[in-house]
Amino acid sequence: MKIFAYGIRKDEEPALQQWVEKHPEVEVDFTDKLLSPETASLAEGADAVNVYQQLDYTRETLTALQEFGITKMSLRNVGIDNIDLDAAREFSFDISNVPVYSPNAIAEHSMIQLSRLLRRTKELDRKIANHDLRWAPTIGREMRMQTVGIIGTGHIGRVAIKILQGFGAKVIAYDKFQNDEIKAEGLYVDSLDELYAQADAISLYVPGVPENHHLIDADAISKMKDGVVLVNVARGNLMDIDAVIAGLDSGKISDFAMDVYEEEVGLFNADWSDKEFPDAKIADLIDRENVLVTPHTAFYTTKAVYEMVTQSMDASLAFINGETPAIAVEY
Amino acid sequence: MKIFAYGIRKDEEPALQQWVEKHPEVEVDFTDKLLSPETASLAEGADAVNVYQQLDYTRETLTALQEFGITKMSLRNVGIDNIDLDAAREFSFDISNVPVYSPNAIAEHSMIQLSRLLRRTKELDRKIANHDLRWAPTIGREMRMQTVGIIGTGHIGRVAIKILQGFGAKVIAYDKFQNDEIKAEGLYVDSLDELYAQADAISLYVPGVPENHHLIDADAISKMKDGVVLVNVARGNLMDIDAVIAGLDSGKISDFAMDVYEEEVGLFNADWSDKEFPDAKIADLIDRENVLVTPHTAFYTTKAVYEMVTQSMDASLAFINGETPAIAVEY
Ligand SMILES: NC(=O)c1ccc[n+]([C@@H]2O[C@H](COP(=O)([O-])OP(=O)(O)OC[C@H]3O[C@@H](n4cnc5c(N)ncnc54)[C@H](O)[C@@H]3O)[C@@H](O)[C@H]2O)c1
Ligand SMILES: NC(=O)c1ccc[n+]([C@@H]2O[C@H](COP(=O)([O-])OP(=O)(O)OC[C@H]3O[C@@H](n4cnc5c(N)ncnc54)[C@H](O)[C@@H]3O)[C@@H](O)[C@H]2O)c1
Repeated sequence: MKIFAYGIRKDEEPALQQWVEKHPEVEVDFTDKLLSPETASLAEGADAVNVYQQLDYTRETLTALQEFGITKMSLRNVGIDNIDLDAAREFSFDISNVPVYSPNAIAEHSMIQLSRLLRRTKELDRKIANHDLRWAPTIGREMRMQTVGIIGTGHIGRVAIKILQGFGAKVIAYDKFQNDEIKAEGLYVDSLDELYAQADAISLYVPGVPENHHLIDADAISKMKDGVVLVNVARGNLMDIDAVIAGLDSGKISDFAMDVYEEEVGLFNADWSDKEFPDAKIADLIDRENVLVTPHTAFYTTKAVYEMVTQSMDASLAFINGETPAIAVEY
Repeated sequence: MKIFAYGIRKDEEPALQQWVEKHPEVEVDFTDKLLSPETASLAEGADAVNVYQQLDYTRETLTALQEFGITKMSLRNVGIDNIDLDAAREFSFDISNVPVYSPNAIAEHSMIQLSRLLRRTKELDRKIANHDLRWAPTIGREMRMQTVGIIGTGHIGRVAIKILQGFGAKVIAYDKFQNDEIKAEGLYVDSLDELYAQADAISLYVPGVPENHHLIDADAISKMKDGVVLVNVARGNLMDIDAVIAGLDSGKISDFAMDVYEEEVGLFNADWSDKEFPDAKIADLIDRENVLVTPHTAFYTTKAVYEMVTQSMDASLAFINGETPAIAVEY
């Protein structure tokens, strides 16, 4: 039994090593190279491949694997939209992904960023780096004094609520499909408008499906409290970024944290330090003292990576053993 | 009835204004100047003064006030060690302070800093400011995966515990005088050695009394886990900073956040940006990616300032009305 893993990053190696030690019966080999028609031959002799990449899984790539007799592919990430599913169907590929790896990674990041905005840490950090150790006028606000509006009470939103409650903040929530536990706690308001009217800070945890496109636009922002704090770690297309920037400029929005951006593909997870930065809006936001930009790193924790590696390797092994893992993708 | 307030900062004005509006029967006047023999005359005609300063309250200053018939002084802060108490006794001064204004301000700051260290935000912030938007290798750790050791379960330590529980972290605690609620939750370990052996991160909430001098020294650090994370927002003298720096250099301590420093008087709350920085150790710590230095700002929130102003003004009024406020200082 052999599994070949592509695109293994340094930070994934410890988790992979642990998995290998627990499965002496399985031969595991890996590369840091991504899977492509050219690298497919590296997997020769393996029964399944394990992958994680933004690079497309094209017909050519799948054909190359299939010619080596490999039709089992486990993704260490969630997204399957870059797989040529027609080709996969033709070759009867078994595919799995990792839809839930660590809601806490994302929820924690969102609440850490919110707390940092309230505490004005970016401004204070710059002062301190510059050896200005005066505290005034950089006064902070406390989490416990805020009414925080949570939009979307799925896996991640619910963890964010627990964190806020630990801080002693007042939580209000909205979801199209209410969760029983959150309902029993009495946290739901009846409409987004009600949430906008009451919340000092608002954080999003809904999917970027077409109906949620630009959920936060100029109209929504106009219904919010003056000086509202916004956090988006969910999906870039949930926000009309121009409306958010206008809100920041007018002071309607006092602070903003974003981990996702509608135009992030090709921009995030790349090094622009010695090149011309291609997005003037993001360059400007990165420079603002009341804005925190992170390049889709909310998920990026040792625990999340451990889960991605472990769950996907377990799925690879299940496919080899002729089983259907719970995380197999139906397509 | 008149109260005169000294050293009112811009960030205190809203809270003072609110108090004034609620007390139309009281005349309130204020200055941003500190109380000194020279400025004492500004309070002429007042029945009480309200103050907050690091400047000493000398015999000369108290004499000057007393000559205007003013012997009621309410501090907006905690510390009374810079009052000439012999002179105060001689003139029968009524004095009050504000010992508890917002434990949450300090507890929140400590846990925000801990979460930032775990998430390597200083390193990531610098990358992003520099337009390097690659996430690897700057991987974070999750709060919920940590065993956090809380030393001191008084007002502030207990709030920190609630915050950690919201994150889902495992809390262990040590205190010389156990709190019933924390005991009932089963969080106490029996000794500091036990806490050192088990904790991934350690945060201090004990007073800087002489017996706690250098509680965290080379010996204590040697008993901690490799890669321990340390947070000190309590008092500078709790730590042997040279031992902490040695621990950082060896990697024994992976990350460190400090809001207090044994030699902070005269260094913190001053602007050194255009002067030679007088403390090489702190300059070095400020530059390290795995260290967060804040200049005693943990307390500095709008809620804390509101409490300091409101409680001290209430006390001033109580003294004028011949009452003894609960926060009167016995000296
Ligand atoms: N930044 C990152 O690194 C990162 C990582 C993983 C996931 N995410 C994103 O986080 C978001 C939440 O993920 P999750 O796992 O909690 O999802 P989930 O499916 O568990 O929950 C989403 C919730 O949103 C609700 N919802 C959908 N549309 C809504 C609307 N218009 N109004 C109100 N509620 C609505 C659903 O009923 C559901 O309860 C997703 O957008 C996901 O893509 C971001
Ligand atoms: N950074 C800031 O801005 C800031 C502001 C306010 C207070 N503080 C500091 O925070 C600390 C905690 O304040 P608090 O209000 O919670 O105090 P507190 O008196 O309510 O609690 C202190 C606790 O420490 C315990 N203790 C004392 N010595 C101990 C030891 N050697 N080992 C174990 N436990 C011990 C006591 O039993 C008590 O439970 C104090 O040092 C205070 O000066 C810092």
